[in-house]
Amino acid sequence: MFNTVRLATLAALLAVLIAPSPLRADDEADPLPSWNEGGVKAAILDYVARVTTEGSPDFVPAADRIATFDNDGTLWVEKPLYTQFVFVIDRVKAVSNQHPEWKNKEPFKSAIDGNTEKLLTYGEKGAMALVTATHSGMTTVEFNDIVSNWLKTAKHPRFKRLYTDLTYKPMIELLEYLRANGFTTFIVSGGGTAFMRAYTEPCYGVPPWQVVGSAGETEFRYWDSSPTLVKLPDLLFFDDGPGKAEGINTISGGQPVFAFGNSIGDKEMLEWTANCKGLCFMGLVHHDDAAREYAYGPESDVGRFPVELMEHALANGWNVVSMRDDWNQIFSWGEAETPGAEAGPQ
Amino acid sequence: MFNTVRLATLAALLAVLIAPSPLRADDEADPLPSWNEGGVKAAILDYVARVTTEGSPDFVPAADRIATFDNDGTLWVEKPLYTQFVFVIDRVKAVSNQHPEWKNKEPFKSAIDGNTEKLLTYGEKGAMALVTATHSGMTTVEFNDIVSNWLKTAKHPRFKRLYTDLTYKPMIELLEYLRANGFTTFIVSGGGTAFMRAYTEPCYGVPPWQVVGSAGETEFRYWDSSPTLVKLPDLLFFDDGPGKAEGINTISGGQPVFAFGNSIGDKEMLEWTANCKGLCFMGLVHHDDAAREYAYGPESDVGRFPVELMEHALANGWNVVSMRDDWNQIFSWGEAETPGAEAGPQ
Repeated sequence: MFNTVRLATLAALLAVLIAPSPLRADDEADPLPSWNEGGVKAAILDYVARVTTEGSPDFVPAADRIATFDNDGTLWVEKPLYTQFVFVIDRVKAVSNQHPEWKNKEPFKSAIDGNTEKLLTYGEKGAMALVTATHSGMTTVEFNDIVSNWLKTAKHPRFKRLYTDLTYKPMIELLEYLRANGFTTFIVSGGGTAFMRAYTEPCYGVPPWQVVGSAGETEFRYWDSSPTLVKLPDLLFFDDGPGKAEGINTISGGQPVFAFGNSIGDKEMLEWTANCKGLCFMGLVHHDDAAREYAYGPESDVGRFPVELMEHALANGWNVVSMRDDWNQIFSWGEAETPGAEAGPQ
Repeated sequence: MFNTVRLATLAALLAVLIAPSPLRADDEADPLPSWNEGGVKAAILDYVARVTTEGSPDFVPAADRIATFDNDGTLWVEKPLYTQFVFVIDRVKAVSNQHPEWKNKEPFKSAIDGNTEKLLTYGEKGAMALVTATHSGMTTVEFNDIVSNWLKTAKHPRFKRLYTDLTYKPMIELLEYLRANGFTTFIVSGGGTAFMRAYTEPCYGVPPWQVVGSAGETEFRYWDSSPTLVKLPDLLFFDDGPGKAEGINTISGGQPVFAFGNSIGDKEMLEWTANCKGLCFMGLVHHDDAAREYAYGPESDVGRFPVELMEHALANGWNVVSMRDDWNQIFSWGEAETPGAEAGPQ
């Protein structure tokens, strides 16, 4: 609690401290130390300087500085499986005793058996069946606790680390740099909103209300006579492809001027950003670093990253990040410790 | 743009300046000058002191300090008609030339004729027909411009002022006081999200992504080959009654510890707040000031404020605000200028 005199002092100090001034590399600390000089880093610094300089023809008022980031593959590792899908499989196993019928029913059987290859043959429909079974029938508070507890112990098969350790350091720096320059940062993912909200604040500094994802219906009920929200199996909306632009509007009410993605599911979000009123910035992460992370894209992941997406990006001036060339460090714990560096693409 | 040295300095200053300290009325400026001493004001000050004092058994971490406010009748005037309904009627008139069929079709005919009494007989279904016709078929950007322009000129029939001048000063002070104490403030209304987002930032200091309301579907389309979002006639969700708790979870991801409403549509939100983990605060605005504003409630507005709501509030320790007794000023421009003070309830 603080009083209005303190507030006035604070406001005056803030005004001095955060007054916009052009970034000079020689006298200011580097806000993006994990990014190699030139290339996309130079484009980011130039963009931010332009839109934050009052009087500049490219100036964007702080209220309009909305920046949106895809999550899987853009802010953290998405291979060999989406983290939420690993959670779903673990969750099916954890509650399978309560569902004896699953033992002989696909796709549950493959999930329980740990047969990921077979599980993936059931496609999106199979995945949705597992998501529905594991993401409904409990309160919103219970679900959040389940996810939080899982994140405390589950580890990535290659990196042998918690999934929350597998965020990309350069992107965390970028999020912080944008916020320090008056941007509001949003996560926009095909993944579940409720799943992401369990970790976006500590991982990315993004509060739950700046998370846009696929969302299920909830229902207000008096459970054990306590008013509570129960998660239902029905989908409220699916936040991928065109759904990302729609979801951003539903949750944020705005149109981004800055957006980053890494797959075809981000195309409409990036196109919509490119159509914003002011100067815009579109970024695409290209995974081309099998040694330190994974290599996939137009060459190998033609479902989610077709050649046309790369061509469209290059033709329209989108900023394509080469993880290999643009990032001198990928994880906060340093790639010196990265296991499986010799393994190549997985 | 500022560097990390500046950031460190700022962080140190902030730590000193915003360190929690108990509020002492004698040496700190009054954060709620439009509230009369004692009563609900004392309850608010006591609540905030308890939940923000580290080490107190009632301490609530800043991340959990979610405060939600109904809009119509809680933050601004809702009589004789909801502001958005006035907008809808004006909008039907404005575009009626493009819809000659409306001249002989209800409820459009009554809206065009300005026959509000008859219009209201068509109830919720009639209102929704008008809302659908006026809130879809344009881009999200176009709709926002239409609302913003309307708000610049439309005036309240009794107060002869812009609707944005009819916000309650004591509630604005409360919003600011809560935010200064680490709360995040949300608007939660049965009204349309897109309509509210056109004014919540300048009126309440609440950014668009902290507005929870009824929302229509949108569709990403290439209009004139530009990627854009088009407003559709279908409802995505209705944010009233139990829908308010559901909407808060969908948009904010959290459960409020502090909530204010003024009608039966706020009951579930307030009940859900009362069931939060920590110390909670529930407030209900009672309109009992015909001279300065309006008088309605259990006595006269039994649809939206039944006797049972007041009984439930009093039985459960909810804080009932008497506009007459608790607020020494209602509007920022002062009640000395309030016209129609002699008119009584309208």
